Amino acid sequence: MSPRPYRMGKRAESVARTRAAIREAARDEYAETGIDGASMQSIARRAGVAPGTVLYQYPDPDELAREVIQESTRVMKVPTAADVDADASLASRVRWLAHELFRVYAGTEREYQAWSRSRTHPVIAESDAWYARTYQEVLGAVLGPEHADPRAFQVASAVIDPGFRANLVARGMSDDEAADTAADLVIGWVELAS
Amino acid sequence: MSPRPYRMGKRAESVARTRAAIREAARDEYAETGIDGASMQSIARRAGVAPGTVLYQYPDPDELAREVIQESTRVMKVPTAADVDADASLASRVRWLAHELFRVYAGTEREYQAWSRSRTHPVIAESDAWYARTYQEVLGAVLGPEHADPRAFQVASAVIDPGFRANLVARGMSDDEAADTAADLVIGWVELAS
Repeated sequence: MSPRPYRMGKRAESVARTRAAIREAARDEYAETGIDGASMQSIARRAGVAPGTVLYQYPDPDELAREVIQESTRVMKVPTAADVDADASLASRVRWLAHELFRVYAGTEREYQAWSRSRTHPVIAESDAWYARTYQEVLGAVLGPEHADPRAFQVASAVIDPGFRANLVARGMSDDEAADTAADLVIGWVELAS
Repeated sequence: MSPRPYRMGKRAESVARTRAAIREAARDEYAETGIDGASMQSIARRAGVAPGTVLYQYPDPDELAREVIQESTRVMKVPTAADVDADASLASRVRWLAHELFRVYAGTEREYQAWSRSRTHPVIAESDAWYARTYQEVLGAVLGPEHADPRAFQVASAVIDPGFRANLVARGMSDDEAADTAADLVIGWVELAS
């Protein structure tokens, strides 16, 4: 029934490209200024579009922030409790989690910057709540009932953490070395504690 | 020979008090803005003195920054290699170091903020170089020749670290619990590695 399916497809494609460019520009902007400090003008400049285009595509700045944050969470495939191999040893479950999460952290450095600058922003708070629940569940499944005491949660979550990963990488470790080191720290601590 | 020793004493005392108030105000300012971003006007306002008083007492802003940083280092009594008890076990040397340094970190949270905002400032770079050397020496003495491989240095210095301490405290640990946890992590890691 559409008289110009080809041209409509082209337009939809071009809109999708523009929206993706705006989201990518917003990621850079948030990393530098936080979500609160982000300016539509500056996002438009980074995306190479007119400020009016940003406002037309994303009239609500929180909606833009929400799409950006949700997209990166989806793309990064955060590991969940369902992914944990219950038959593996505690040590290999911990090692698996450290590698999975350090991969996520390496791919979300801009989001981590945005997070540390805008912890109280509602969109960050939403995503934080989701992440905290997911992390809690996957870590619970990794540690298993016999190691799931509150102190083990505190220790493992402080070590398998984006800031701690950045700290190891700044000291010259590769991502894999950093993940292995974090796993060794948690495993060594659990063995010492039990 | 001085005709008014009493009043001169009073004046010297008052100058010392003013200079101390300026340094204390500068610590707050640096923590919020970094050293590069610090404003003399704002330091004067925080100290409750005229901007001209700050400029008269500290004509060189780097000299003010240097005095502030050196003073906090001196006051905090950073542990050195000479303080290490060579007869103690590896575990108790590590525990001692974690407690000593976490005490220093707890007392220098403003300096840590300033440091993370102004890593490239010459005064911070100077103090960094001194701190890195002191840390390297004390950690070498703590680990002893048999554990002093580069990986042990990387791991111990990432765990016995102001950012990692802040991370544990943010998860609800007291300063002593955080220091014990950091020590357990390093000890567990060394045992696992050897």
